[in-house]
Amino acid sequence: MSKEATVIYIGRKPPMNYVLFVITSLNSPDSKEVILKARGRAITTAVDVAEITRRRFMKELEISKITTGTEELPVEEGGTRMVSSIEITLTRP
Amino acid sequence: MSKEATVIYIGRKPPMNYVLFVITSLNSPDSKEVILKARGRAITTAVDVAEITRRRFMKELEISKITTGTEELPVEEGGTRMVSSIEITLTRP
Repeated sequence: MSKEATVIYIGRKPPMNYVLFVITSLNSPDSKEVILKARGRAITTAVDVAEITRRRFMKELEISKITTGTEELPVEEGGTRMVSSIEITLTRP
Repeated sequence: MSKEATVIYIGRKPPMNYVLFVITSLNSPDSKEVILKARGRAITTAVDVAEITRRRFMKELEISKITTGTEELPVEEGGTRMVSSIEITLTRP
């Protein structure tokens, strides 16, 4: 049976930190899919991670799905703020 | 005959500037498709533009395709730098 997709939350670290995590994750024999999740400014980093992994390290890797969304985040002063999000699914053969 | 898709390049302006451009563009009777193109930091803005347009102004709008890429940009000091890019296709019924 195949494992569920690994979810990697993209934050403020440099893209290469996440790239290494993606590669490590996909090198496990029962892991064929990774989902990158990011919000706000980290959306750009998520795209960088997908592109760097595919161009430089795993040429056969496929970006199989990209979806966007909007999330409501609580703010310190009270109330909420809307923030965009992205999910990028990476699949290896 | 239907017009080709309008391409909107997303830069450093606030998202609402581009949202208004998307709405104006799609209100023309022969325009059913808009493609948002962005590079680097503007990728987050492009996702914001798609999400704000869809959630707040045109509920029937569909994000019909999202692709990512890598572009080589010349830098002032000579040589080139790789930068991630995104294309988001918005389609109205």
